[in-house]
Amino acid sequence: MVRFGPVVILVCNDDGINAAGIRALEAVLSPLGEVWVVAPDRQQSAASHSLSLHRPLRVEEDGPRRYAVDGTPTDCVNLAINGILPERPVLVASGINHGANLGDDITYSGTVSAAIEGTLLGVPSFAVSLMARDARDGADFAVAAEFAARLAKAILETGLPRDTLLNVNVPALPSSHVRGYAVTRQGRRRYGDVIVEKVDPRGKKYYWIGGDDLGFVPEEGTDCTATAGGYISVTPLHLDLTNYASLPRIGEMKVEWP
Amino acid sequence: MVRFGPVVILVCNDDGINAAGIRALEAVLSPLGEVWVVAPDRQQSAASHSLSLHRPLRVEEDGPRRYAVDGTPTDCVNLAINGILPERPVLVASGINHGANLGDDITYSGTVSAAIEGTLLGVPSFAVSLMARDARDGADFAVAAEFAARLAKAILETGLPRDTLLNVNVPALPSSHVRGYAVTRQGRRRYGDVIVEKVDPRGKKYYWIGGDDLGFVPEEGTDCTATAGGYISVTPLHLDLTNYASLPRIGEMKVEWP
Repeated sequence: MVRFGPVVILVCNDDGINAAGIRALEAVLSPLGEVWVVAPDRQQSAASHSLSLHRPLRVEEDGPRRYAVDGTPTDCVNLAINGILPERPVLVASGINHGANLGDDITYSGTVSAAIEGTLLGVPSFAVSLMARDARDGADFAVAAEFAARLAKAILETGLPRDTLLNVNVPALPSSHVRGYAVTRQGRRRYGDVIVEKVDPRGKKYYWIGGDDLGFVPEEGTDCTATAGGYISVTPLHLDLTNYASLPRIGEMKVEWP
Repeated sequence: MVRFGPVVILVCNDDGINAAGIRALEAVLSPLGEVWVVAPDRQQSAASHSLSLHRPLRVEEDGPRRYAVDGTPTDCVNLAINGILPERPVLVASGINHGANLGDDITYSGTVSAAIEGTLLGVPSFAVSLMARDARDGADFAVAAEFAARLAKAILETGLPRDTLLNVNVPALPSSHVRGYAVTRQGRRRYGDVIVEKVDPRGKKYYWIGGDDLGFVPEEGTDCTATAGGYISVTPLHLDLTNYASLPRIGEMKVEWP
């Protein structure tokens, strides 16, 4: 195909179209192509990440090439690629998320879900998260945005393996303190065994899980360990959770049936 | 360890403690041990599946060895194992879910999340789903419950590989029409490219994704294909989404940084 115009890049997130993180990502990707933003009309971090097949979706134009959808990040990417964009995008970039998406917590992440949907639709995709929620945490999207732009450039040049997305986490550090980037594997959240029991002013019990953030299992080569050491982590993910190595053993299990 | 009492089995779900599916699972597992139910106090299918670290949880007793939690399925399993149960369970059984959890949709499933949490806490775990939502769909939990009981027996006898859970889907068929069970791999949802545009009575546009349920990619050996053929599917899953095979290639990508 002979191309006459700039390539199309889709930007999405789960913090909503007005979040500071998506604005930063949008701005920094603009030199690489024609950026279209299709994102949830509100914060979707705690919402379902599934495709909305059983209800209709509303789309509001929010400026040139900006669309707010009353759906999940997954909905936004699907609707964008199959309906809103003038042509197939060359890249889906999701984020910049306000807060980390590390270790086994990624299965709960709307930001990563958007990149998963892009991947399922055959478009090279990545998710990028800053390990700070707001200015009080030292949230400064500049470093994450700059890295996202350079990663996007590399992806546009060399592509990504089939069915593979990249999950990027950026420590909340000034540029001079970031030690570089590392290609990592998915780490694991630490599982405490502490339940804290409290009693409310009306004499009724309630519970806290772990008391506080539980941290992660310290293992070499993981996203958790790399970011804790001041590196940007880049983890290639795929979408098949099957434990192939266990198939023979599970096949030998004797389930009496019928 | 010398055991003097019955083993403890934890039952959870995401449809809520009063759903027909969890009642069926509870009843059928009782001969195998002392069943404790710790489940969400309401339908949680569309809620976040993460651990609630930033708010306290309420627990209401709902009969002997039955507890309703105002949290996610993940919260329930964590709270049960670390706080509510009198000893460590030998098994976590999640379900019976009202509706399928097949293919790449499982990353959105609260039912599967509960089994993931059990696995992360080191307890053999499985999730079981019936491919029907309610009586109109022909929902009859008897076959799924019976299979769950026999699978539970097999797991208690032989254990499961480390970090591996089983995801079970049962077709909504009478017992005589179920052709057996198959050990499967995770299938893939079909991705249509159809967005249907409609106009509401006030002249405003809205959109449907796919128009209807999009089905799955027909591939031999998957949970989707097995259940469509009348088999119960048993898919071993693990929790690490890293695409290890792609690590060298991603390592060779040239991202200019700093």
